[in-house]
Amino acid sequence: MSVTAPAGFEASGIRAGIKSSGSPDLALVVNRGPSNAAAAVFTSNRCKANPILWSEQVITDGRVSAVVLNSGGANCYTGSFGFQTTHATAEAVGEAVEVSAGDVIVCSTGLIGVGDQAFRDAVVGGVPLAAAALRADGGADAAIAIMTTDTKPKEAVHTSPEGWTIGGMAKGAGMLAPGLATMLVVLTTDADLASDALDRALRAATRVTFDRLDSDGCMSTNDTVTLLASAASGVVPDEADFTRALTELCRDLALQLQADAEGASHDIAIEVVNAASEDEAVEAGRAVSRSNLFKAAVFGNDPNWGRVLAALGTTAARFDPYAVDVSMNGVMICRTGEPYESRDLVDLTPRAVHVLIDLKAGDATATIFTNDLTHDYVHENSAYAS
Amino acid sequence: MSVTAPAGFEASGIRAGIKSSGSPDLALVVNRGPSNAAAAVFTSNRCKANPILWSEQVITDGRVSAVVLNSGGANCYTGSFGFQTTHATAEAVGEAVEVSAGDVIVCSTGLIGVGDQAFRDAVVGGVPLAAAALRADGGADAAIAIMTTDTKPKEAVHTSPEGWTIGGMAKGAGMLAPGLATMLVVLTTDADLASDALDRALRAATRVTFDRLDSDGCMSTNDTVTLLASAASGVVPDEADFTRALTELCRDLALQLQADAEGASHDIAIEVVNAASEDEAVEAGRAVSRSNLFKAAVFGNDPNWGRVLAALGTTAARFDPYAVDVSMNGVMICRTGEPYESRDLVDLTPRAVHVLIDLKAGDATATIFTNDLTHDYVHENSAYAS
Repeated sequence: MSVTAPAGFEASGIRAGIKSSGSPDLALVVNRGPSNAAAAVFTSNRCKANPILWSEQVITDGRVSAVVLNSGGANCYTGSFGFQTTHATAEAVGEAVEVSAGDVIVCSTGLIGVGDQAFRDAVVGGVPLAAAALRADGGADAAIAIMTTDTKPKEAVHTSPEGWTIGGMAKGAGMLAPGLATMLVVLTTDADLASDALDRALRAATRVTFDRLDSDGCMSTNDTVTLLASAASGVVPDEADFTRALTELCRDLALQLQADAEGASHDIAIEVVNAASEDEAVEAGRAVSRSNLFKAAVFGNDPNWGRVLAALGTTAARFDPYAVDVSMNGVMICRTGEPYESRDLVDLTPRAVHVLIDLKAGDATATIFTNDLTHDYVHENSAYAS
Repeated sequence: MSVTAPAGFEASGIRAGIKSSGSPDLALVVNRGPSNAAAAVFTSNRCKANPILWSEQVITDGRVSAVVLNSGGANCYTGSFGFQTTHATAEAVGEAVEVSAGDVIVCSTGLIGVGDQAFRDAVVGGVPLAAAALRADGGADAAIAIMTTDTKPKEAVHTSPEGWTIGGMAKGAGMLAPGLATMLVVLTTDADLASDALDRALRAATRVTFDRLDSDGCMSTNDTVTLLASAASGVVPDEADFTRALTELCRDLALQLQADAEGASHDIAIEVVNAASEDEAVEAGRAVSRSNLFKAAVFGNDPNWGRVLAALGTTAARFDPYAVDVSMNGVMICRTGEPYESRDLVDLTPRAVHVLIDLKAGDATATIFTNDLTHDYVHENSAYAS
């Protein structure tokens, strides 16, 4: 169900012929109201795709009636022709579902530089088909149509005892590193919240979920997370309750993205504790998550804590380099900067790896989610364009 | 010859039993003067190995009489015992070659966390053997003894028509990313220069050579580049001439390191032109050199310029994202932010890859040297500790 779990939403996912494989490649999510309050966050990459340039304008008034998403081409670095394609896509959606084109968020994913006439024809031509396929239980179809190298759709639903629901879908398998957002995500709710409250809740949720997922250190040009509220439940939730539920749902989707990251054989949680500040905990965890040597060692089930410390040492986080403790999967292999328990005790054969880093510099904490660096990652990403 | 090419130097490389393989693992370079002026630069990693902590003190007076280097163990994160090992190693060298221990630079390379009693016994016990093996043509032996995963020794010699010579040796195959220096390097000269002139020349040379090599984005805890001057030629060189020659020699060694980087199948030069400042050119080039997606694409001979732009967009360098040109191996595949010449024209089958990025934001330029991301890189680095 995902995005159609809350009342007031319809969705579809169809084959528009964008992908040469013939797989579903166009998704549409429509908010039938009564409210169309919304919030969105976008990649902080300065090289932004055309749909980002468009959608950043759409969200300025806090109103979104529909989100259209295509896989099979990023429409990024395709010039003014590409921007016109995005505009034409929004116009087509506006016409097909009788909303203003200025209230239509457009998302694209696929190869950068793809956005020619054939792409435009397929996307714009597909919109009426997607509109005709809209269904109150179409969420699952939409979640499938946004997949690229994803091996499975990612969906989540949360229902509150007070009578409101949040649903969500996500795609992303590579180029998973955060700027502000970090993949294509559509979140829907039938709760009654104004756009400023939605914006606060969305930024609070993404900051500690999608923004803490750093699969391969590469930031996308197309990332968009949109939150749509229909108010169809008639319930005005407590904002803190809503934010908490939204955060949990985003964490669920983020972990689904991590679990399906291209070529990965381990899901690694890097937990930094006792940092001087939360930002420094994030910086320290992210430095480790971006060490190719550390990630290759985990692939080989090698608890190479020296590579953890070498990465920590490149940061500006406050800590005494010779006071740090490092544990892997429950075994403290480095204590106050010296070898401690035997590395032979560390079992890295499970897919889940927990790295615990105690900086002993304060009381802030953060966890970064990443993956190992594998033969399959190299293979999938060397063959992506072909 | 390398470090023994200039007059006034002796060197050796022997089997001290540090490596279980029985390969040569201890090198010694001695400056017989008449001068012992010197300069050194070290990793900027805050997690520093014990030899770094020692050698930073040694260099403060600008005098170095000997450099002792071991492979087979980094003596990093080995606590006060490890520091005492470094100290004992310097004392042993001082006694064996009749110099002050306080004038002995110590360098170690290998696995972090390795530095136990057996390591100490092997290193300290090996010093008298290394001293006994010193020869005026021992440079080649020394260059072999510092190898770890290097497949070949790295040496270079420059002889000036004015009668002075510079020699150098280097090791490094992984964890090749710059802080200040980026590997173990010993440079020798028989020119007569004071330590402050040597320091200026060394920093100028490393800034545009070793500091621009970024094979895998990972910064070592042990990197040291030492420059020793014996004055044995009796010639006082022009400082600018000397700096120019030293820079060329460092570039030669840096490119040898790039060509032997673990698992690499391409040597990539990322040339950023027309940047607003040299620092921004370096930042832009380094961002591309650290994109795993870009590096995996090069491995697959795929001219994926979208990944170049996605990496550029994460930097703070001043440029208009939609005005950038990108060429690969002479073919401009992206012009003012749009697809231009066909990617099919780009031939990435040669080992040498040239990426030219025109930011159109100023007149500064910089080139970063990196490698592709390959199956063999992952394999070598997942199996390193075993």
